[in-house]
Amino acid sequence: MKRMTVIPEPVAGELTSLLGRERFLTSAADRESYAWDNTGNRFVPDAVVLAQTREEVCAILRLCHDHRIKVTPRGAGTGNVGGALAVEGGLLLSLQRMNRIVEISVPDRFAVVEAGVVNGDLQTKLDAYGLFWPPDPSSSRTCTIGGNVAMCSAGPGAVRWGVTRDWVLGLEAVLIDGTQIRTGGRTTKGVVGLDMTRLLVGSEGTLAVVTRAILKLASKPEQRLLSRISFPSVEMAAAAVSHLLSARQSPSAIEFLDGSALDLLRRETTLALPAQARAMLLLEVAGGVSGLKELALEMIEGIQRFKPLEWSPPVDGSEAASVWAARSALSPILKKLAPKRINEDVVVPVSRLPLLMTGLARISDESKIPIVNFGHAGNGNIHVNLLVDPRDPAIMGRVPGVLDRVFRLVLDLDGSLSGEHGVGTQKRDHIAWELDQACLNLQREIKKVFDPMGLLNPGKVWPRS
Amino acid sequence: MKRMTVIPEPVAGELTSLLGRERFLTSAADRESYAWDNTGNRFVPDAVVLAQTREEVCAILRLCHDHRIKVTPRGAGTGNVGGALAVEGGLLLSLQRMNRIVEISVPDRFAVVEAGVVNGDLQTKLDAYGLFWPPDPSSSRTCTIGGNVAMCSAGPGAVRWGVTRDWVLGLEAVLIDGTQIRTGGRTTKGVVGLDMTRLLVGSEGTLAVVTRAILKLASKPEQRLLSRISFPSVEMAAAAVSHLLSARQSPSAIEFLDGSALDLLRRETTLALPAQARAMLLLEVAGGVSGLKELALEMIEGIQRFKPLEWSPPVDGSEAASVWAARSALSPILKKLAPKRINEDVVVPVSRLPLLMTGLARISDESKIPIVNFGHAGNGNIHVNLLVDPRDPAIMGRVPGVLDRVFRLVLDLDGSLSGEHGVGTQKRDHIAWELDQACLNLQREIKKVFDPMGLLNPGKVWPRS
Repeated sequence: MKRMTVIPEPVAGELTSLLGRERFLTSAADRESYAWDNTGNRFVPDAVVLAQTREEVCAILRLCHDHRIKVTPRGAGTGNVGGALAVEGGLLLSLQRMNRIVEISVPDRFAVVEAGVVNGDLQTKLDAYGLFWPPDPSSSRTCTIGGNVAMCSAGPGAVRWGVTRDWVLGLEAVLIDGTQIRTGGRTTKGVVGLDMTRLLVGSEGTLAVVTRAILKLASKPEQRLLSRISFPSVEMAAAAVSHLLSARQSPSAIEFLDGSALDLLRRETTLALPAQARAMLLLEVAGGVSGLKELALEMIEGIQRFKPLEWSPPVDGSEAASVWAARSALSPILKKLAPKRINEDVVVPVSRLPLLMTGLARISDESKIPIVNFGHAGNGNIHVNLLVDPRDPAIMGRVPGVLDRVFRLVLDLDGSLSGEHGVGTQKRDHIAWELDQACLNLQREIKKVFDPMGLLNPGKVWPRS
Repeated sequence: MKRMTVIPEPVAGELTSLLGRERFLTSAADRESYAWDNTGNRFVPDAVVLAQTREEVCAILRLCHDHRIKVTPRGAGTGNVGGALAVEGGLLLSLQRMNRIVEISVPDRFAVVEAGVVNGDLQTKLDAYGLFWPPDPSSSRTCTIGGNVAMCSAGPGAVRWGVTRDWVLGLEAVLIDGTQIRTGGRTTKGVVGLDMTRLLVGSEGTLAVVTRAILKLASKPEQRLLSRISFPSVEMAAAAVSHLLSARQSPSAIEFLDGSALDLLRRETTLALPAQARAMLLLEVAGGVSGLKELALEMIEGIQRFKPLEWSPPVDGSEAASVWAARSALSPILKKLAPKRINEDVVVPVSRLPLLMTGLARISDESKIPIVNFGHAGNGNIHVNLLVDPRDPAIMGRVPGVLDRVFRLVLDLDGSLSGEHGVGTQKRDHIAWELDQACLNLQREIKKVFDPMGLLNPGKVWPRS
């Protein structure tokens, strides 16, 4: 408890009277519950506050500002890069209790939600109106809209619908000094002033704390149909992906599994896979029931020139669910096989996928670290999984060098270090590899405009200077 | 020529040796050609430079920076808000000669273009690959990609494909001190650092001079089919628009004409229109030939509940072109009827269109200034045209008050002052009505990060302080 000294007595007093003992948490057990995210790293905050209203968020941030206390905003803590961890201590500000769906406008196709609304809960609510909000991270059943906005989250649907930045019309946020701002609005067009909405989306909670979002909604497809298509090589699969992108309607998902991922599925599941398959695509189409199966078959017909070994007819319902389940089983299988999995979500132009795979195979061979790759091929966004044992110092010693080689490979292929996970603490030492110095300097200056004392979500995104 | 004194002799000398006499223009006639845009306002720059390479842009801006000379970047000068006018004198920097299409990647569906490439020229080139770049401002045959990026341009297709910000993957730009920066990249996903690409898009040339853009491309629809649908009231037309937005595939355009626009067409064209029609929609669908007509008819069937008076069967080719021609004829007709037309491109949520129209009719009645309205109903983006005679001081005296009422009406309806034209000089005194003070202050500070001396495109966007 001795680190508690960083929350001075008067501040603790004010927070207690503002939030009560139930929402200003200082016990070791309570603080521990907010110390983790999907990185597996642990940083225990000095205290946790559970805000319920934007006025409380204003008051909390003003207190932090006046007393120079570092503060880390947090949604559900499902992030992959440490963005919601209090890595420099201080206050952890949970937005999870701000979970009201404030308004759903069917004629104008927007929803106004508080930051703590769970993505999946919103989807359930929208379902009744035949609408949905397209961003679909794999954590959608638990992650919050505030987290999605902070990280510019995405999932398989991005190939057709784009990412979070494409589905946010406006925001309400609070600056570190407690001032509330509004950006954007309720219209699908608007060009008055700088695009502050898109500046906040993906800023990982380092510029302001988002309290509300106005989300643009889409018509929910009546049906989704899924096919599995296996190929003898990554080259053929990648060429098929490029071709599928030119179809008259975009697929709603083009997921990819490499040879090592298929080997795992062969070993650990009952999925029947051709022996020569070295790559597999999961092709999903979505739309009205009428004509959808024909569309899927037309797409499969269109990629016959890339010599698929085998393909399944388009299926929906439980049959599709079992294929998605096999895809989702990869993560637990990896966790079972290796004590630790390091997951990097790099992205390259689709045509570069074969070179990325060849390069990754070489790195894996030379380092003797198994690498398993799968992900959102339609966007060239691949989850590169290094399987390691943290108890083996020889292997762990090689990890930084291997990651450096992976990142260098990706950048040499005109790619980006992160397609959807973000930077957080995990990639801050590498972003200068991708961004030029002048652009990085501008970003640091913009951060200072919003947060001159560096109190908001410290230790994230920008390299240590 | 006496204002030429603001370009000091040594700078003129350096520009001459850098660009030659042919591309450093100081004659009154040459300067006059760069003094106009679509506002009809005239601001003669002190000199004009025609850059051909990004290295020249770097050198020009560095000179301006070192000698504190104001500089206004310009594409084709087709803007509606004065964004490309040298309103505070100084140097006018034309990007029109930087018009190379550097690369078109068919498998990765992007194009790399210089800022001066004409939108329509790019489309012609992309046509051969079955691709297009969706932003479609009405000036597309002359406007440049750099101008589109600066203003976040859009047109009728925005209802389906979105606006310029949705179709830019990355940028190359030059800061006022001559430093080159790169933002984004060649992938359709990427979340490394702040979204500098979207910060520059729509910043109206006030932050940096964009020299190159990496544009995301879409598959060009095989066919477009257009129907005219007339309604007895704006209410019914607006309700039909909301319904059309929920169709299984988005229309590629939902254009709107109000009663006063229809009156003009009755009087000035041979278009047959039902006598009771007080609103008309132009509904366009786009896609593969197979099933497209059925889709259009299904949409028209779906809006029968809103009691259209009449509708034309979906047509393409020359028949569709003649309808678009009638829509396009509105602007010349307005110019013929009134010595001056003041065109404000406001936007409201679609469901608020009836209230917007009622309010505009009241303002027109009370001010005795005719107002004609048409525009992109699918986005709630309406071009409000005030018809005035600049030689009539009584009328002109009422204009500022009328504009104030229009803007107040739009904001009361949760709208925005500009959907696609931007702020420039024309709306800078009104943006504080829409943006809150804290957000405006942040924007001013961001402007200072990029351009501390306020040399780049001065007199635009932000209110006089």
